[in-house]
Amino acid sequence: MIVKLSTPYSFLDDYSEGAHPRLLEALIRNNNTQQTSYGTDDYSAEARHILHTQHLHTTPEEVAIHFVPSGTAANLISIASCLRPYEAVVAVDTGHISCKEAGAIEATGHKIIGVPHARGKMTPTNLEHTLDRNQFFPHMAKPRLVYISNATELGTVYTRAELQALSAVCRRRELLLLVDGARLGVALAANDDLTLRDLVDLTDIFWIGGTKMGALLGEAIVVRRAIAEGFEFHVKQHGALLAKSRVMGVQFAELFRDGLFFELARHANEMARRLAENFVQMGFALDAETETNQVFVLVPDDLLPQFEERMRFYEWEKRDGHTVIRIVTSWATDETQVEKLNQWVRQVREVRA
Amino acid sequence: MIVKLSTPYSFLDDYSEGAHPRLLEALIRNNNTQQTSYGTDDYSAEARHILHTQHLHTTPEEVAIHFVPSGTAANLISIASCLRPYEAVVAVDTGHISCKEAGAIEATGHKIIGVPHARGKMTPTNLEHTLDRNQFFPHMAKPRLVYISNATELGTVYTRAELQALSAVCRRRELLLLVDGARLGVALAANDDLTLRDLVDLTDIFWIGGTKMGALLGEAIVVRRAIAEGFEFHVKQHGALLAKSRVMGVQFAELFRDGLFFELARHANEMARRLAENFVQMGFALDAETETNQVFVLVPDDLLPQFEERMRFYEWEKRDGHTVIRIVTSWATDETQVEKLNQWVRQVREVRA
Amino acid sequence: MIVKLSTPYSFLDDYSEGAHPRLLEALIRNNNTQQTSYGTDDYSAEARHILHTQHLHTTPEEVAIHFVPSGTAANLISIASCLRPYEAVVAVDTGHISCKEAGAIEATGHKIIGVPHARGKMTPTNLEHTLDRNQFFPHMAKPRLVYISNATELGTVYTRAELQALSAVCRRRELLLLVDGARLGVALAANDDLTLRDLVDLTDIFWIGGTKMGALLGEAIVVRRAIAEGFEFHVKQHGALLAKSRVMGVQFAELFRDGLFFELARHANEMARRLAENFVQMGFALDAETETNQVFVLVPDDLLPQFEERMRFYEWEKRDGHTVIRIVTSWATDETQVEKLNQWVRQVREVRA
Amino acid sequence: MIVKLSTPYSFLDDYSEGAHPRLLEALIRNNNTQQTSYGTDDYSAEARHILHTQHLHTTPEEVAIHFVPSGTAANLISIASCLRPYEAVVAVDTGHISCKEAGAIEATGHKIIGVPHARGKMTPTNLEHTLDRNQFFPHMAKPRLVYISNATELGTVYTRAELQALSAVCRRRELLLLVDGARLGVALAANDDLTLRDLVDLTDIFWIGGTKMGALLGEAIVVRRAIAEGFEFHVKQHGALLAKSRVMGVQFAELFRDGLFFELARHANEMARRLAENFVQMGFALDAETETNQVFVLVPDDLLPQFEERMRFYEWEKRDGHTVIRIVTSWATDETQVEKLNQWVRQVREVRA
Repeated sequence: MIVKLSTPYSFLDDYSEGAHPRLLEALIRNNNTQQTSYGTDDYSAEARHILHTQHLHTTPEEVAIHFVPSGTAANLISIASCLRPYEAVVAVDTGHISCKEAGAIEATGHKIIGVPHARGKMTPTNLEHTLDRNQFFPHMAKPRLVYISNATELGTVYTRAELQALSAVCRRRELLLLVDGARLGVALAANDDLTLRDLVDLTDIFWIGGTKMGALLGEAIVVRRAIAEGFEFHVKQHGALLAKSRVMGVQFAELFRDGLFFELARHANEMARRLAENFVQMGFALDAETETNQVFVLVPDDLLPQFEERMRFYEWEKRDGHTVIRIVTSWATDETQVEKLNQWVRQVREVRA
Repeated sequence: MIVKLSTPYSFLDDYSEGAHPRLLEALIRNNNTQQTSYGTDDYSAEARHILHTQHLHTTPEEVAIHFVPSGTAANLISIASCLRPYEAVVAVDTGHISCKEAGAIEATGHKIIGVPHARGKMTPTNLEHTLDRNQFFPHMAKPRLVYISNATELGTVYTRAELQALSAVCRRRELLLLVDGARLGVALAANDDLTLRDLVDLTDIFWIGGTKMGALLGEAIVVRRAIAEGFEFHVKQHGALLAKSRVMGVQFAELFRDGLFFELARHANEMARRLAENFVQMGFALDAETETNQVFVLVPDDLLPQFEERMRFYEWEKRDGHTVIRIVTSWATDETQVEKLNQWVRQVREVRA
Repeated sequence: MIVKLSTPYSFLDDYSEGAHPRLLEALIRNNNTQQTSYGTDDYSAEARHILHTQHLHTTPEEVAIHFVPSGTAANLISIASCLRPYEAVVAVDTGHISCKEAGAIEATGHKIIGVPHARGKMTPTNLEHTLDRNQFFPHMAKPRLVYISNATELGTVYTRAELQALSAVCRRRELLLLVDGARLGVALAANDDLTLRDLVDLTDIFWIGGTKMGALLGEAIVVRRAIAEGFEFHVKQHGALLAKSRVMGVQFAELFRDGLFFELARHANEMARRLAENFVQMGFALDAETETNQVFVLVPDDLLPQFEERMRFYEWEKRDGHTVIRIVTSWATDETQVEKLNQWVRQVREVRA
Repeated sequence: MIVKLSTPYSFLDDYSEGAHPRLLEALIRNNNTQQTSYGTDDYSAEARHILHTQHLHTTPEEVAIHFVPSGTAANLISIASCLRPYEAVVAVDTGHISCKEAGAIEATGHKIIGVPHARGKMTPTNLEHTLDRNQFFPHMAKPRLVYISNATELGTVYTRAELQALSAVCRRRELLLLVDGARLGVALAANDDLTLRDLVDLTDIFWIGGTKMGALLGEAIVVRRAIAEGFEFHVKQHGALLAKSRVMGVQFAELFRDGLFFELARHANEMARRLAENFVQMGFALDAETETNQVFVLVPDDLLPQFEERMRFYEWEKRDGHTVIRIVTSWATDETQVEKLNQWVRQVREVRA
């Protein structure tokens, strides 16, 4: 993967800009109040209350909510908090923790057992097959937690039925289910039949990504009380308990107070949809259907230099004279830039045709 | 230690408020630019440049600068990055990592060998004595890194001569020296003969605390290149590499662009000085001379309830009919509140006398 | 501590010789049978059965018994198996895990909180005082397991009443109690009112040292079933699950079949008693009363060279013109050598007087 | 994998019996000498001397030799000793550390990156391909050590040319090469063109398995001095530094004094060869050519119950109406039993044909 930085507008990722203006305004508005620290501030309490009452439909006795500054922290703390030393995580090979977190999970002492993915997703069949092959105890680490991402690293999403099926396998086989929600916003926005409440019902821990949905930083971990004992120690021990926890509380309260979070997610998906449709109309193949805010397009290698001059993106994979490039939209993606890019793509095709 | 929350103004700590307004303004000003991520943004580069050229007088080839979101993260990453698995940290018993980080250092696998403190500080004599008693290898973990805090957890500061002496012992005995600078601002403001450049010369790693000096979050780790290899992997692996690293870069650039950091530190110290002087004049004993922004006052236990109604503070220790309370000032401490408190203290004494 | 190796007979430690001949004979006798491995062999089963029925008076449903090759392994596995990542061990400063295991406990991620010792032992008062000072959660690691050694590193033993008192504190404060039994044999031999069954009743985990009581290697960990879930995974994960587990099973069966273990322990204690009494009669001061197989004698520094020529021992500590030396006897200590040494000590004194 | 225990003679593994009689005799012969401990005994010194001078043709300044009680310990200590926290191991999916050590490597904090195997072996092509896909730093753990087993877990061996090619890739790409030698004896016995000296030249660390070649326990780790600094701390910290290190020293001295080790390995291979040839002659397919002491035979499922009555073995895999069973021979395998089994196999086939 090589980052191309030569052109003005970036479709590299969904964290190129700062925060949504409303979040910054809220930070300024509340800046001078004196607050207690390390998660006990009024704004974190408010954010938790909003999430509990409006979105999760839970009480604090049912699930706990903890804010941490990064997705890696959310994953490693969630996993380390509920596994015994010999227990392992099960994750698809394309999962973020499998390949993009610098060994953060293993650094907490736990093995990740790989499962073949299906369009970035874990299927009950592949999961059960892997479980069946990992039963030679105590010589093998004991599978105990299933990790999935929604949206996945390939931009696909789990349907409600898929998540129910996976959850059923986990419960039958006494496995915890964790959902990495770095891009949970776009997943929910893409899929009307799945809600935050469903995640409470179907999983044991999940986290709601703020960084990729308009916050300066911050992810909200939602964890069933039954397995949340001592969770704040884990957050502290891994350096993720911010003294000024208000910085995350204020932003999450604002994101969820009146649905801003979902509104921003819909924008990101819509921008990706427009790009994807235009590519298809112009005869470019997509490597995967665009379900959320990531567009994977096959670009003929001779066209690649022109693409590189026009915008920033990641080269994902080389394949038979083509390059799969990843284009990412976000809450901040400028509609005008999307339209301009689409026009340019049309011109490129016309010249070529 | 019991937090007392009953009265309006808080002298609990130096992170009760949000950020200095100039930092928030800078975040807004730069909010819409597109930046690359994970430490590669322009603002982090600018902050590094300002620190290198104006304060450290170093080149990027000599020392590396990394921003992380919390002090615990700064300590655990710094330590984990330069120790082999069997190497130990040496720290005074009152050191933050010894007693207030939920075992974060041990969680990375390293033992902390305790040294008796002298007013919160490590002395060459106590250090050497401890080293001499920890040489029965390989049955004992090998002392390899000396951790000190400046200012210390008791508010005291190291003089230049003291730091030189400690540094000399470390070099003679092949130990690395790490300075926890959560409160480095007030330490430098209290002590004209010590500079950031001196820290480069006398230590191997140190970090500059932003959270306690007006930032929303962020600490800048300064590490000698010779031991910094792969440092960014450690930052990533521990969940401290923020996608939007700009949030720390912008704030540090603003804090150090024209000396705001030191100005804020001087304010904090001055507020503490005024409180301490008034206490002494009113016949209260201080548990330690007030060198920075922490005031440790002995309050007769029968007066304690009145203090608790008047302001927020930590009870530090019970001692013979008295309670040592810790009062902390900060960059945000309101001068008027200090004056009001001083007046109140004078009244309390008069009534009593 | 400097090992002196110049003279023929060694009182350095209780593991200078190989194994008691009966144990070697048993290994040879059973050598050719085919056994399953990794703890499932018939001899380990037999050893467990003997311990359960003759000594612990327990069923396998109440406590599990696991054999591991070393004391460090026994300690680190026992501790790692029953703590969550943020939980800490509480141990006296002279405890083996505090200072002589190369940071093995911290390497599994856990902090050891120090308690001042009383003649090598932990007292309820010192324990409670330490607990009370370690409650500032989640900033402090949570005390969860109390580690003691019996006999202690200073050769002292816990009376039944002392162990009961400590156990009561642990239960009241929800702490697990672990007894390091590297020298449990000599402790029990020195103290008629304490039995292996008492350890089952008063502790949560303890281990019975074989290495220092006549085995080539091997320690038997006895752990309450309630906290033993998955224990064999821990043993495996730390490299302590021997393929030929028979090597430990055979030896433990032999040691406990008819009381050999206790007989050997009595011999070690008796040898130490004779040495200690002679030293006292000859006017040497003991640094501590000799309760088991370790004798701590104060030797005037001008006599030290003669002692060094005469036998091997550890220099324990320098003190005002004297050196405290540690003399250790064992199951293998030759009675004749003890008598010869006593005669030599008498001569040294006479010449001097 | 299900262990079948119903029949008398076991071909389950190569550690079903105790030790070769000569090793036990040596233990008895040396039992009464007083030795210093923790690796400093005379017998360990002798064993090291024999290995250095007769087999490795090295000086102690070039490579260090450490004895540890188990293969898991050898692997985890070797790996933990030479990696920084963010560095990863690269191993084939069938590698012992990948799937049969209860997550022992990950428990030391390191990720294992999987490589597809070729008959249990790692090929330069597969290795380089994996390396090329793991370069997105610092988001990916950094590949630093290549782990292979010789003989492999499938009984295959590396030729000298294969090992040279792999070593060349490692050196070019700055990777350390570790050889798990649990079954190094049978690998060398099967392959005249590879010697222990070659392993010194071509690898950075390797270990010589004693447990599977006639010792009660013990593996000898051979490590280049350049990366061996502090190795004894690692051994101690992981509980693998036996007080009575003589138990391993005596056995290794005996195994290597006059070639017993290789003689026993040849026997194991010869027994496997006879079984394999007979199977083939009788029309059974082998899943892999038998290069060492492991025979993988495809048994029709309807014959399986008869096999289970006749001997002990592991079921390795189910495949299209057949079961791949693993039959293992060892230094202790009784020639008569091999002949009896071969006869029985012939009868089974005749009845069936």
